[in-house]
Amino acid sequence: MASSSSEYLFQQVTIIGVGLLGGSLGLLLKEQGLAKSVLGIGRRRPNLELAVELGAIDRFFSEAKEAARDSDLIVLATPVDTYVSHVQDWGSFIPTGAIVSDVGSVKGKLVFDLEEALPPTVNFVGAHPIAGKEKSGVAHATSKLFNGARCIVTPTNHTNEKALAKVRDLWERAGSDVVLMDPMVHDWVLGAVSHLPHIVAFSLMQALQELQDVTSEGLNLLDFSGGGLRDTTRIAASSPEMWRDICLANRENLLKMVDQYISQLQGFRQLLNDQDGAGLAKSIEQAKMLRERLP
Amino acid sequence: MASSSSEYLFQQVTIIGVGLLGGSLGLLLKEQGLAKSVLGIGRRRPNLELAVELGAIDRFFSEAKEAARDSDLIVLATPVDTYVSHVQDWGSFIPTGAIVSDVGSVKGKLVFDLEEALPPTVNFVGAHPIAGKEKSGVAHATSKLFNGARCIVTPTNHTNEKALAKVRDLWERAGSDVVLMDPMVHDWVLGAVSHLPHIVAFSLMQALQELQDVTSEGLNLLDFSGGGLRDTTRIAASSPEMWRDICLANRENLLKMVDQYISQLQGFRQLLNDQDGAGLAKSIEQAKMLRERLP
Repeated sequence: MASSSSEYLFQQVTIIGVGLLGGSLGLLLKEQGLAKSVLGIGRRRPNLELAVELGAIDRFFSEAKEAARDSDLIVLATPVDTYVSHVQDWGSFIPTGAIVSDVGSVKGKLVFDLEEALPPTVNFVGAHPIAGKEKSGVAHATSKLFNGARCIVTPTNHTNEKALAKVRDLWERAGSDVVLMDPMVHDWVLGAVSHLPHIVAFSLMQALQELQDVTSEGLNLLDFSGGGLRDTTRIAASSPEMWRDICLANRENLLKMVDQYISQLQGFRQLLNDQDGAGLAKSIEQAKMLRERLP
Repeated sequence: MASSSSEYLFQQVTIIGVGLLGGSLGLLLKEQGLAKSVLGIGRRRPNLELAVELGAIDRFFSEAKEAARDSDLIVLATPVDTYVSHVQDWGSFIPTGAIVSDVGSVKGKLVFDLEEALPPTVNFVGAHPIAGKEKSGVAHATSKLFNGARCIVTPTNHTNEKALAKVRDLWERAGSDVVLMDPMVHDWVLGAVSHLPHIVAFSLMQALQELQDVTSEGLNLLDFSGGGLRDTTRIAASSPEMWRDICLANRENLLKMVDQYISQLQGFRQLLNDQDGAGLAKSIEQAKMLRERLP
């Protein structure tokens, strides 16, 4: 623990939205003594009380303006589609030189929108710690969540170098492997490795529902599933609101990616239809080879 | 261990194909004293030597006829497309009343083909232990593989009741939960909960390869993947030969199922294209609810 104010990385951090990610960040800041005080903002009072009890935040406010006014770091940890209205609410109240950051799964145009919505005296630095669980809520928060994970930080031409260095420092102290990336490239990359796989899993569960509907009564398909289906669809149990917002925010990339995926499925279907054994084996072999390159 | 021949469930078992499943069955038969002797048949001698060393089989033969001649149970554990040619090879040499069974992931028409290819003095009983790993080969075999797993046994109108009871007994002693099912229904059920998810995962890996090809040089998409992609595509690392054969054998169901899946993806794509937030949330919510019902 740091013993004097000057040793803290931040004096006062405000976390907007104290769920799994926001709560885990709070725990990290407190446990490692990276912030002198951590304030929480949220809609549900029992959740904020639990966050205090767990040590993720010191205090909470219902009005973000009150907390933001004296903070040198404000972190957005709410659904991404609420970011702009949040900063419009309190952006003009925060101190000159303060940093606004986030933990969202979407960057792209949103980063530029936030830069524009904030006063020029404030520094926005986008960050995306690639960490999470299907379980949401501060009750599942842990300061270890970010340890060993990648964290993509997305500076632009307008990003203040000192603010960037501080955000980078924060995530490195969290044990994350920090990578800098253009916000637009971030959304392409995450669209491919995270958002598309979620759509794949959502649609598979829905297809199984349709197949169940045409299966003899009394026979429950899911009773016969093994570890394969369980793993393949684990991420289908994610938050509908969060994933609605991610899909909408990364809509243009995802439309292209879903098309690409459907075209692969149609190719596989064609091989199957043609009883092309060699083609099927080659196709599966390619998938297997790429899968074996996954870290 | 049983001490006299009469206490064994089987006197001599021949396992055709001593890989992960065949080897695990051999270990189970030996460890639980369910068979007096277990013989192995395979193409690769070093593999059979390893199987003897691991205790999965007692001896091996290169000619199935020699082993089958005195066996009261012969289990097919090779790729499903080889079954018919196997039984054509040794079917006429096996003793009256002997049982032929299998451990394959496909049943359907194959069961009737096998009944027809075998002499009427022999009893075929199809079985599908729903167990496995991505790792194949006898080196990964374990007698615990079937413990707690479902095993679907697929009798037909021609199935001998005593032979059925013995096969059922075998799998119950393996710790499996045995369910009887029509061979055609088996393929519909497994098509939905296992084969379709494999095609989903194969095609996702291939789509990622295509997306990688249009990504800026030096940027490796897979470097930014998290647990979500890893889980979703775990089964994409399965054996190409085995899955080629399963897909071909269950072709008619899978063509319908892939169509159903593509239609779900197109529905999701439409919601995304229309920026229909409520529709997307509802769709993801349905997927989440069904996923939460998975055992």
